[in-house]
Amino acid sequence: MSGPPAASVPPAASRDFNAIFARIGPQMTALDQFMRLQVERFEPEIRSMAAYCLDTTGKRLRPTLVFVSGWQGDGVVSDDLVRAAGVVEMVHLATLVHDDIMDRAEIRRNHRTAAREFGADAAVLLGDALFSQALHVAAQFPTTEVCRVVAESTRKVCSGEIMQTLRRRDINISFADYERMIDLKTAELFRVSCFLGSRISGHAPDFVEASAVFGRHLGVAYQIYDDLVDFLGEEGRIGKTLGTDLATGKLTLPLILLLEKLPPAERAELVKSLREGRPLGLAASVGRMRELGIATGVVAAIDRELALAGAALAPFGTLTPTPLMLTLCGVLQGQVAALQTPPC
Amino acid sequence: MSGPPAASVPPAASRDFNAIFARIGPQMTALDQFMRLQVERFEPEIRSMAAYCLDTTGKRLRPTLVFVSGWQGDGVVSDDLVRAAGVVEMVHLATLVHDDIMDRAEIRRNHRTAAREFGADAAVLLGDALFSQALHVAAQFPTTEVCRVVAESTRKVCSGEIMQTLRRRDINISFADYERMIDLKTAELFRVSCFLGSRISGHAPDFVEASAVFGRHLGVAYQIYDDLVDFLGEEGRIGKTLGTDLATGKLTLPLILLLEKLPPAERAELVKSLREGRPLGLAASVGRMRELGIATGVVAAIDRELALAGAALAPFGTLTPTPLMLTLCGVLQGQVAALQTPPC
Repeated sequence: MSGPPAASVPPAASRDFNAIFARIGPQMTALDQFMRLQVERFEPEIRSMAAYCLDTTGKRLRPTLVFVSGWQGDGVVSDDLVRAAGVVEMVHLATLVHDDIMDRAEIRRNHRTAAREFGADAAVLLGDALFSQALHVAAQFPTTEVCRVVAESTRKVCSGEIMQTLRRRDINISFADYERMIDLKTAELFRVSCFLGSRISGHAPDFVEASAVFGRHLGVAYQIYDDLVDFLGEEGRIGKTLGTDLATGKLTLPLILLLEKLPPAERAELVKSLREGRPLGLAASVGRMRELGIATGVVAAIDRELALAGAALAPFGTLTPTPLMLTLCGVLQGQVAALQTPPC
Repeated sequence: MSGPPAASVPPAASRDFNAIFARIGPQMTALDQFMRLQVERFEPEIRSMAAYCLDTTGKRLRPTLVFVSGWQGDGVVSDDLVRAAGVVEMVHLATLVHDDIMDRAEIRRNHRTAAREFGADAAVLLGDALFSQALHVAAQFPTTEVCRVVAESTRKVCSGEIMQTLRRRDINISFADYERMIDLKTAELFRVSCFLGSRISGHAPDFVEASAVFGRHLGVAYQIYDDLVDFLGEEGRIGKTLGTDLATGKLTLPLILLLEKLPPAERAELVKSLREGRPLGLAASVGRMRELGIATGVVAAIDRELALAGAALAPFGTLTPTPLMLTLCGVLQGQVAALQTPPC
């Protein structure tokens, strides 16, 4: 993840996520229907629990990647792309069910988490059932390829989550460690979503590979953004209460940079608070972060990844999916910019 | 699961499990090697954890079923059968990792459970990684069939486990409920093991189907036996301390029959103890169970399933795998008989 790529990110005019959503509307409607049908595939005794998890209120970033990287033109709905989108979304929802157990999360998307609703024990198994059904659907493609890449990807996602779990409250995490963890836990499924979209749409191997590289860098960028939201969002909203990641001891990029840049005394105070799981003091306030240029450093990391994502697609500017894919980079840049502008 | 089958279970002379193990020794050795290679497939950061779970000390009943139902003669080791055996064993080991979280089990096979060794949170994800790797291996067969049946089977196993988890301490469980739960949580993977063994060895569809039916009934029989072991074993060994199942509130066949047959006053006392998670009194003693013929009822249920398993293979007596498969029924009968004989 180095080297100076040719930035191909589109101008702000095309940064509108709603515009993308309007274009993939027919595909998302087909996905809704697909997911409702999936509920029926579960054993009757656990069907309502599966329905609870397979709700349709999420952001559906991974299905968006499948549809966009396999884009064949407005209004063209491919059953195979819908099925692949369903597979990656089910894998993602399964990981959320298990993540929420580990984070002791009670609420997600304004609903009680599966762990809160059904108990942690049942939620462990329910996540397993969702994983299994995802792989069962993956096995409905004519060849074993989808199953193979999704199963491998899922293993990597879990590996990344395990690393994060084992290194909670470990203040010695380096940027390389952090990058490796988010590469596995987030970027991997973004990568596979883009791989599957372009592959299933019948693109040549060089574009399929470029599409996968694009997805990976977009995934890294997205996770860094998400970690910044967690840090700034919570801090801004409720004063010095810990963000979700901080409360569970996850060391993300804002905090890694802060630990690097704080003077020794403040650093020691922050480390003590982190180790004891106490609210962070002034050292981690938004003001102090701004003084130290933390957000700037985080945003630079995001921009670097987005530039690499764009560069991967540079040789393929004339292909149908490319403009929409690049627009996704622009959308994320827009969201990052909005985050830096203080609310009025 | 009714009707009078033609019993085809072999005489006691062929009930020796060691004799079977001696014959599938070369296959098991190949499986050992396969499992060790699998460890290398995990990300370096979690490899030692994967190795901890993929140990070689288990009973390996499911691989045994794959090898026996795909039997091609002494000394013939098929790579495909070894791979299929590895898949079902990995799925099984993954479910054990998750089961032990739910049962708060500390020890399995004289080792600390993964949950105890790495923490419940990491164990959730580690189980997921094992599942994923199993499906990744399943996707290495030329067609999607192995992936499809294993993924579906895994979903069913999880559904069965969820039912059991949700109905802990529910004293209104019927025999039909119990049968449905063990059919899913245990018999399903036995069924798939036998399906894969015979299918991969190239048998005709009618034998493959019969082999699957055999596996299912053997699986139901085995789970009932295992539940009896839990009940009697613990009771006999440490007086009135709860068996593992009882401690976690699982209502298994011995207890279901006991609740049916006890006089009202004793039943009320037992129900109270169960609900409160207290040690069971005299009502659940081995002596009382013997007076009420509980073990006899449980053994009759096992025999019924074994007879159905044998009957499924009756038309295929001349095929290579059949004698070994029937011997497995005899082995289980022998174990059941040994359980009924009080130790000297």
